[in-house]
Amino acid sequence: MEDRELRTLNHLMYMEYYTGGNAGLFMKMKQLVYSFQSPFQRIDIFEHPEFGMVLVLDGITMFTEADEFMYHEMLVHVPLFTHPNPKRVLIIGGGDGGSLREVLKHPSVEEAILCEVDPYVIDAAKLHLKEMSVELDNPKASIFNENGADFVRKNKDYFDVIIVDSTDPTAGEGGHLFTKEFYSNCYKALRKDGIFCAETEDPFYDKGWVAIAYNRISSVFPISKMYTGFMTTYPSGMWTYTIGSKELDPLEDYDEERVLDFGAPLRYYNTEIHRASFALPTFLKELTGQF
Amino acid sequence: MEDRELRTLNHLMYMEYYTGGNAGLFMKMKQLVYSFQSPFQRIDIFEHPEFGMVLVLDGITMFTEADEFMYHEMLVHVPLFTHPNPKRVLIIGGGDGGSLREVLKHPSVEEAILCEVDPYVIDAAKLHLKEMSVELDNPKASIFNENGADFVRKNKDYFDVIIVDSTDPTAGEGGHLFTKEFYSNCYKALRKDGIFCAETEDPFYDKGWVAIAYNRISSVFPISKMYTGFMTTYPSGMWTYTIGSKELDPLEDYDEERVLDFGAPLRYYNTEIHRASFALPTFLKELTGQF
Amino acid sequence: MEDRELRTLNHLMYMEYYTGGNAGLFMKMKQLVYSFQSPFQRIDIFEHPEFGMVLVLDGITMFTEADEFMYHEMLVHVPLFTHPNPKRVLIIGGGDGGSLREVLKHPSVEEAILCEVDPYVIDAAKLHLKEMSVELDNPKASIFNENGADFVRKNKDYFDVIIVDSTDPTAGEGGHLFTKEFYSNCYKALRKDGIFCAETEDPFYDKGWVAIAYNRISSVFPISKMYTGFMTTYPSGMWTYTIGSKELDPLEDYDEERVLDFGAPLRYYNTEIHRASFALPTFLKELTGQF
Amino acid sequence: MEDRELRTLNHLMYMEYYTGGNAGLFMKMKQLVYSFQSPFQRIDIFEHPEFGMVLVLDGITMFTEADEFMYHEMLVHVPLFTHPNPKRVLIIGGGDGGSLREVLKHPSVEEAILCEVDPYVIDAAKLHLKEMSVELDNPKASIFNENGADFVRKNKDYFDVIIVDSTDPTAGEGGHLFTKEFYSNCYKALRKDGIFCAETEDPFYDKGWVAIAYNRISSVFPISKMYTGFMTTYPSGMWTYTIGSKELDPLEDYDEERVLDFGAPLRYYNTEIHRASFALPTFLKELTGQF
Repeated sequence: MEDRELRTLNHLMYMEYYTGGNAGLFMKMKQLVYSFQSPFQRIDIFEHPEFGMVLVLDGITMFTEADEFMYHEMLVHVPLFTHPNPKRVLIIGGGDGGSLREVLKHPSVEEAILCEVDPYVIDAAKLHLKEMSVELDNPKASIFNENGADFVRKNKDYFDVIIVDSTDPTAGEGGHLFTKEFYSNCYKALRKDGIFCAETEDPFYDKGWVAIAYNRISSVFPISKMYTGFMTTYPSGMWTYTIGSKELDPLEDYDEERVLDFGAPLRYYNTEIHRASFALPTFLKELTGQF
Repeated sequence: MEDRELRTLNHLMYMEYYTGGNAGLFMKMKQLVYSFQSPFQRIDIFEHPEFGMVLVLDGITMFTEADEFMYHEMLVHVPLFTHPNPKRVLIIGGGDGGSLREVLKHPSVEEAILCEVDPYVIDAAKLHLKEMSVELDNPKASIFNENGADFVRKNKDYFDVIIVDSTDPTAGEGGHLFTKEFYSNCYKALRKDGIFCAETEDPFYDKGWVAIAYNRISSVFPISKMYTGFMTTYPSGMWTYTIGSKELDPLEDYDEERVLDFGAPLRYYNTEIHRASFALPTFLKELTGQF
Repeated sequence: MEDRELRTLNHLMYMEYYTGGNAGLFMKMKQLVYSFQSPFQRIDIFEHPEFGMVLVLDGITMFTEADEFMYHEMLVHVPLFTHPNPKRVLIIGGGDGGSLREVLKHPSVEEAILCEVDPYVIDAAKLHLKEMSVELDNPKASIFNENGADFVRKNKDYFDVIIVDSTDPTAGEGGHLFTKEFYSNCYKALRKDGIFCAETEDPFYDKGWVAIAYNRISSVFPISKMYTGFMTTYPSGMWTYTIGSKELDPLEDYDEERVLDFGAPLRYYNTEIHRASFALPTFLKELTGQF
Repeated sequence: MEDRELRTLNHLMYMEYYTGGNAGLFMKMKQLVYSFQSPFQRIDIFEHPEFGMVLVLDGITMFTEADEFMYHEMLVHVPLFTHPNPKRVLIIGGGDGGSLREVLKHPSVEEAILCEVDPYVIDAAKLHLKEMSVELDNPKASIFNENGADFVRKNKDYFDVIIVDSTDPTAGEGGHLFTKEFYSNCYKALRKDGIFCAETEDPFYDKGWVAIAYNRISSVFPISKMYTGFMTTYPSGMWTYTIGSKELDPLEDYDEERVLDFGAPLRYYNTEIHRASFALPTFLKELTGQF
C-alpha cells in the first residue's frame, strides 16, 4: 500500500533565482525528501518527476541525477587525463560524492581526499543520493570536514591534482575558494607537475566571476586555460572550468591513448570533447582576455 | 544541533490553481513534512513561515493553522447553536479533526461520528496537525472510513445535525457530496428537527457550484438558508455555507443566550456574527435566487 | 484581422506578493495594456482572461473589473447612507474613478472632489478602465492632483463626507493617509455632522495596520466603528473599513428607507449588508479593542 | 517626463514551460511591448531588465537580444563557411531577421530569400527588434510569406545553402519542417554542392526530436553531421544543429582562411569553434547513432 507512486501535480515548485534575480529555472517537485539547516547552509533534496533526485544548497541547484554526469565528468577527467599519472588527488567541496566517483575511476589514483566543510551534505548524499555517493566509503578515499582554504594551506608539494567543486562564490563558504590567496596555496600544495582545476561559473549570468576567477588563476599558474561544457540544469547551461598548471599543457601533454583505453564508462567526456572544450566562443575569449 | 531553524528562502513554492486555472494563491514553504499518495488523493502537509502547518489534498488547500478557526467555527457553530439540543452529530469528511474539535465543544453532544473516506488523512493529521486532531481520540467520537454518501444512506431518523466538511466537488470524492440524492439521504438520516449544514464553495471562482449546491439543498429541505464567512486562505476569501432544515430556522429559532453562556473559547463566531452571516450581498442573492 | 482574440497561455503571470512576502496571488495575463512609471509609482493595467482589466500600482492590485464593485460599494455607500443628506463629498485617492462613480449615484451630492496625487492614474483609467472612469468628467466632479494630506489641511468645516480610497500604507504616498495628524485634519474639514470613512486594510496579512488605523481614527472621532466586506482579489479577501463620525452613528442613524428607495443599481451593498458588516469576528474585535 | 525608466518589480513574470511541462525558465518582465494573435500563433515581445527585448511565439522563447548572437551565428556561419562560394541562400522561418542579418555578412551572397509563413512576426520585428531586423529591407533580400515546406517544393537545383530557422516541431507550423518529405525537397532545391542546415532542438528536454531530426536528415543527405552550440536562454542551454550535404564536408572542406579574413564582426563563431562544435558528448553520439 505504501508503494503507490506520488502523482505530480502543479502545486509544488522549486524556483532557482539566478544571479541578479531577474531570471531562473523552475522545476516541479514530486516530493521533497530532505530539508536541513546545517551550520553552513540550507540543504534540500527533492525528487523531480523526470530528473530524479535534485540537490539544492541555499536555494542553488547543485545537480540533478539526470545531468550531473556532464558536470562531474568535465570537472574531473580533463585534469586527470592531462596529468600523466595522477596518484594523489584533492577534491575541495563536492560533498555529494560525484567528483570522487569520477576520480576513483582512474586506476592510478592511490589517495583521494575529499575536503567538504559541511558534514551534513555528505550524510544527506549517503542517505538520498545513492548514485553520487557510491564511493564515499571507498578505502582510497579520506574525508575531511574542514574549510577547503584552510586545509590546502597546510599541504606543500603533495598533490598531483586539486579539483575545486565549489558552490557559487556568493553562497555560503564559496567565496573563500575564489581568492588569489587560495589559488596560491593550491599552487604550493601541488607537486612540480601538478594540475589545478576549478569550476568557474557561467559567463551569461555571472560574467564578473568568470573573469575574476580566470584572471586570478592565470596570475598564479604559468599555464592557465579555460574550457567549457554543457550543464543542462545550471544557469545558462554553459559552464566554465579553469585549469591552472605548473608544467603540463592540457592540449599538448594530454595523452589521447589513455582515454581510448579507459575502462570505466563515461557518458559525456571523450577524446574529441577534451580538445574541443578548449575552443572558446569569441565573447568568452574577450571576457577573459585569452587570445 | 538538530534544532537549528530552517531558513525560508524563495526556492520552495506551493501554488494552488483556483477553479478555471487562471489565478491562484502561492505560499512559500519552510519545509514539506509529509507527502503521500493515498488510494483517494495526494496528501501533502507543509510548514509555512507564518501560517504554521498547511494541509493540501490533490493540490487544494484544506487549511492553514493560522486561519482554520474561521472555517471550522462557522461550519459547526451556526448549525449547532440553531439546534436547541444537539446530541448526535455526523461529520462527513473533515478527517483532519477540526470540525470534530468544534463539535465536541458543545457539552450536549453525546455522540460525534466522523465519516472520512480516507484513513491516511486522519493518520497524517494525528502525526502533524496537533491542533486539529486533538479530539480524534475522544471517547464520544467514532470514526468510520467509508464513503460519506454510502454511510448516510444506511441511517434513518437518527442524527440531530449533519455537517458536510468536504473537499471541492471537482476533487477526489467531493462530487458525491454535491448530489441531490445525497441531500435527500441526509434528510432521511436526520431526526424530525434535524439540521443539515454543508460548505458550499466560493461565489467568485466557483459560481456554478454555489448555485447548484444551494438549489439542490433547497429542493430537499423545507427551510434552506445560505450564509457566508471569511476564510482568508481559501479561494477569494469568501466562503458560503448552506443550512438545510426540517423545522428550525437558523435566525428565528437560534438561542442567543446559549452562545453567550458558552464556556469554550471561540475566535471567530459570536452572536452578532451568527445573525450577520445570513445577510448576503446582492449578487449572491441573485446567484442563488434567494429573495 | 486585427480582431483575432489573444489566446491565454501559461506564459504571462502577474504575481502580487502580500505583506511579509511569504504568500500572494498570481493571475495569468491575457495581455498587458499599459505600463508607466509616474513620478509617484509604477502603474500597470493588464487584461485577465476572466476578470477583465486589472489595475496594479507598484505591484499591488487595486482592483479587477470583476470584483471592484464589492470594494467601491462598501467604501462609499455605508458612509453616504449614514449621512442624512450628503452634499459635499471628498474622495482622497481613488484616481481610477470607482469611488466617484458610486458617490455620484447619490442624487443629494452637489459637489464631489477627487483628490488624487497622481494624474497618470486618472489618465490611464480614462483610457483603459471605461467602467471605472465613467464619471470623471461629470460636471459635479472636480479633480485635484495634490497630496491628500495637504489638501485636507486647507479645508475647514466644509465636507459632509470624506472618503479615503488609498493604496497601502507601505506603498507610495499611502503612508501619509494613515497618520493621526491626517485624521485630525479630516475631522476639522468635516461639518458638524460629518462622516469620515477609510479603507483600513486586511486583518490577516496586515494585522498591525488594521489596529493602528482603527486606534488612531477612534482617538480623533467621538464615534468610530469598523466594518468589513468581502473583496475577493484583495489579500485574504477580508477587507476592513473604518467610520469616524462627529455625531451620527452608522447603525442607529442610518435610514434604511433611503436604501430601499435608491434608484441606482447596486450589486453588493443592501440594507442587510449595511447592518451586518458591523458585526465583527471575535479576533477582529480583540485586534482593535472594540468590545 | 515620459522618459522616466520603468522600475522592475517582482510582479510581471514570463514563464516558459519546457517540453514535458515539468521545468522551465522564468524571467521578470520590465514591460510587455507587443502582444498579437496572428493567424499562425501568439506573438509577444517583452523587455527584460537585463537581456533587452525578448521575442516569444506561442509561449516559447525565440531569443533575447543578449544572447541571440550565439544561436544565429552558429546556425548561419557553419554552413556558409562550409560552402566555398554561397550565392543563393534560402532561410526558412527566421522572420525576426536574425539569420538574414548573419547571411548578409557574407559578401558572396547575391540573393537571400526569407520564407517566413507569418508576416506579423516580420512586422513586429521591424517595429520592436531593431538589432534583429536591420537587414529585412536589404535589396539582396526577398521575403515570402508562405509555408516553408510548400515554398521549397517549388524550387529545384537552385540554392547553395538552405537554413531552417524554425520554431519547435510541436508548436505552430514547426512540425512541417521536421518531416522526411521536407528534407527530400530541400535536397532537390539545392545545387549539386549545396548545404542544408537546420536547428534540431536540445537533447535534454527534447531527446526524441533530436534523434528523429538527425535520422531523417541523414537518410536523405549523403553527408550529415550534427554540431552543438551554447544558447543560454534556450531549454537546457545546449542546442543542436544538423548539416545535410550533397558533397562538401563541414570539417574537411571548410576553409579556415575565409573565416580569418572575414570582415564582419562576430561574437561567438570563430575557427576553433567551427571545428570544436562537431565534437559531440558521448550521450549525444549514442542518441543519434553517430559513431
